[in-house]
Amino acid sequence: MPTPPPDPDCIFCRIVAGDIPCHKLHKDEHTLAFLDINPTAPGHTLLIPKAHNARLDEMPGETMAKLGAVLPRLAGAVAGAVGAPGYNILQNNGAEAGQAVFHVHFHIIPRGLPGSDFRFDWPAGKLESDAAADLIARITSRLA
Amino acid sequence: MPTPPPDPDCIFCRIVAGDIPCHKLHKDEHTLAFLDINPTAPGHTLLIPKAHNARLDEMPGETMAKLGAVLPRLAGAVAGAVGAPGYNILQNNGAEAGQAVFHVHFHIIPRGLPGSDFRFDWPAGKLESDAAADLIARITSRLA
Repeated sequence: MPTPPPDPDCIFCRIVAGDIPCHKLHKDEHTLAFLDINPTAPGHTLLIPKAHNARLDEMPGETMAKLGAVLPRLAGAVAGAVGAPGYNILQNNGAEAGQAVFHVHFHIIPRGLPGSDFRFDWPAGKLESDAAADLIARITSRLA
Repeated sequence: MPTPPPDPDCIFCRIVAGDIPCHKLHKDEHTLAFLDINPTAPGHTLLIPKAHNARLDEMPGETMAKLGAVLPRLAGAVAGAVGAPGYNILQNNGAEAGQAVFHVHFHIIPRGLPGSDFRFDWPAGKLESDAAADLIARITSRLA
């Protein structure tokens, strides 16, 4: 799959290009990590692919594999540096999911510290057998 | 790095071993995906590594790369199957971050549908230059 071109209107593409500065933590051939300038916790970090894709499902698996190779060690370094006992990895797709910049980015959000105010609300139901069978059929047919 | 052994007390290791059933969506040499039995949205899916690691920062980058290779296509299939305009990818580390099963798992949570009730609250501050410089020094020293 060809690498998508940079989007001149995308703030993260402009950071990758060096046109906008960032608080850089890591850079390699495929990925860039920097501090979020509007942190919801101390050490709040973003890991992005250099290539532009708006949403995760538009991104090649090989690009996500490159991000994945970096993510565990980066997350451990961030949480360790701020002394956080926990952290969330969050990646949002679509305005309905809270996505604000339409270039794939993974948030690393330290938790359990003063100033770490990220919270989620998770009302859970129960998966019934009929609903499960229907979902499995619909999802696996898209994976086939 | 050697593959960690299964943990007999871990429910996800027991699902991987086939001792506990699951609503399976995908399986390959390194990963397994299945429906969450306590969904917070229609289609709520979990993607896990077969190997047991409690937290992301304890997991080899190569294992996360294997998960990453699957995640975009799986997320697209889940969101597409339920007709969700958006979705969140969430992975929790530590009880402080909402982790309930201590075997790394990535949630795919469809958003923007009836019955999709996951919400987060994201009070954001402003990153000051001095704090940024201090964080960069502390995080990059752990990455070196």
